[in-house]
Amino acid sequence: MIKPRKAFFVSDGTGITAENIGRSLLTQFPSIEFDELSLPYVDTVEKAERAVAMINASVSDDVRPIIVSTIIDDQIREIIATANALLLDSFDKFLQPLELELHETSKHQIGQTHNIANEKNYHSRIDAVHFALENDDGALLKNYQHADVILVGVSRCGKTPTCLYLALQYGLRAANYPITEDDGDAMKLPDSLQPYRSKIFGLSISPQRLATIRHERRPNSRYASLRQCADEVRHVEAIFRRYKIPCINTTDYSIEEISTRILAKMGIKRKML
Amino acid sequence: MIKPRKAFFVSDGTGITAENIGRSLLTQFPSIEFDELSLPYVDTVEKAERAVAMINASVSDDVRPIIVSTIIDDQIREIIATANALLLDSFDKFLQPLELELHETSKHQIGQTHNIANEKNYHSRIDAVHFALENDDGALLKNYQHADVILVGVSRCGKTPTCLYLALQYGLRAANYPITEDDGDAMKLPDSLQPYRSKIFGLSISPQRLATIRHERRPNSRYASLRQCADEVRHVEAIFRRYKIPCINTTDYSIEEISTRILAKMGIKRKML
Repeated sequence: MIKPRKAFFVSDGTGITAENIGRSLLTQFPSIEFDELSLPYVDTVEKAERAVAMINASVSDDVRPIIVSTIIDDQIREIIATANALLLDSFDKFLQPLELELHETSKHQIGQTHNIANEKNYHSRIDAVHFALENDDGALLKNYQHADVILVGVSRCGKTPTCLYLALQYGLRAANYPITEDDGDAMKLPDSLQPYRSKIFGLSISPQRLATIRHERRPNSRYASLRQCADEVRHVEAIFRRYKIPCINTTDYSIEEISTRILAKMGIKRKML
Repeated sequence: MIKPRKAFFVSDGTGITAENIGRSLLTQFPSIEFDELSLPYVDTVEKAERAVAMINASVSDDVRPIIVSTIIDDQIREIIATANALLLDSFDKFLQPLELELHETSKHQIGQTHNIANEKNYHSRIDAVHFALENDDGALLKNYQHADVILVGVSRCGKTPTCLYLALQYGLRAANYPITEDDGDAMKLPDSLQPYRSKIFGLSISPQRLATIRHERRPNSRYASLRQCADEVRHVEAIFRRYKIPCINTTDYSIEEISTRILAKMGIKRKML
C-alpha cells in the first residue's frame, strides 16, 4: 500500500494563500494521494524550528514531504529551507523579480495579505455580511435599492451561500429572492423585483441535483420530489428567458465559481479587500 | 503625479488563487500604488489574446504592468507570456519541480482548485453555512451538540462573520451566542452553555472599536456608548477568565485572522474543501 504523500502549507500568517497555491498545484496530480497539513502563524524562530522538526519527522521510506511556503521573513525562511523536503517558496521566486521591476526593496513584513490594514474595507465587508443576512430569502425588499446584485432562483439552488461568499470575499451587497411556485406559475417576475431588473441575476440548477439537495433537508417530501423540482426549474428558467435575466446553471459549480462567474457576467469589478 | 502601477491577476478559473498570491506580493511594496484587475476564466486562445491586448494597452510611459498568473494550459500560458509585462507565473515555477519530485507528469487541466470535484465536501460546506445561519445569535441551543465550535462574546464583536467564514472556508459548524448585559452582570456563563464548555471560544474587542462599530448601527444610542461598551467588554472578559475560556481580542484582526487563529488555538484541523 502506498502511503499518502505529506504536504505542508507553511505561512507566517493565516495560511490561506499557501493553501490556495498548494491545492492548485497538488490537484494537478490526481493519481497521487496527499496528506495535507496547514502550519499557519509560523512567525518566530522557535515556531519555524518546531515546524522543521515536524516536517522532518514525517519523512518515511526516504520519501520527502512537499512544502508550499509563503513565509516572508528571511531568517524564518532560511530555517524552513533546512527541512528535508521539496520546498516550493512563492516569495523566494517572485519577490526578487518584483523588486527589480519596481526599483524598490520589499518590506519583508509578515501578515500583510489578510490583515485589517484598511479599516474602511473591513467595515464595508462586515456591512455586506449583515446586508446579506438581512436580505436573505426575499426579506426587506425596501433595501434592494442598496443592493449590488439580487440573486433569484428556486429554493436551495445556492442563493444564500453565494450571497454570503460575495459579501465576505468581495464586500458586495447581495440580496436574494426565492421564486416560489406561485410566482413561477404566473411566468412573471414578481412585481416587487421589477424596479431592480438591472441588478437581477438568475441561478438555475438541474432538477436531479436540486432533488438530492432538498432530499437531505426534507426527505421524501413533495418539496424534494423530482417532479416538483423539475416543475420549479422549468418555470424559473422560463422567467429568466422571458425577461432576459442573465443566469448560470449552478449544478457543477462550487460557491467560488458561481460567485466569480456572476461578477464576470454582470461586469461587476471585484473590490480588493 | 505618479500613475498607479497596473497589476493583472490572470487565471483560467475563479482567479482567487492568483488574487491571493498577487496581493501577498504587492502588499510588500506599501509605498507603491497599484491598480489591480482580475482577469478570471481566461480559458480559450481567444480570451487569452484579448487579455494580452488589454494588458498591452495598459502600458504607459514605458512602464510595464505586472501579471500574476495561475494559468495551467500550456498554449494559453504561452500566449499570456507574450504580453509586454513582468510575468510572475506560479505554475511555470512550481509544476516542473513537483513533476520531478513525484515522478509523474501533471494533468495541466484547468479549474481544479475551486471546482466542485468532491460532492461530499460541497454538501458539508453548504450544511455548515445553514448551520451557522440557524445557530446565529443564540438561536436553537439544542443544536449545540452538533457544533464544532461555539463563539461567545458581546454584540458586534465579530461572531457572525467569523462563523460564516468558518463555514464557507472550512466547512465547520460554528454557532454563536451573544453574552448580554444580564448574563454579564452575573459573571456567570449562561447555564445553557455549560454542557458545551469544551467547544466554547471567546471573542473580545477593545471598547473603543466596539463603540465605533455599534455607532454605525445605532448612532448615539446607549448601546453604542463607550461606557456601555467598556462595561460589557469587562464583564465578558471576566467570564472568559473565570471559566478559562480560550479567547482572542479581535480589535486588530481581519475575519480570516480571527478564524484561522481560532482553529489554531482550539487545535481544530482544517478541512481542505
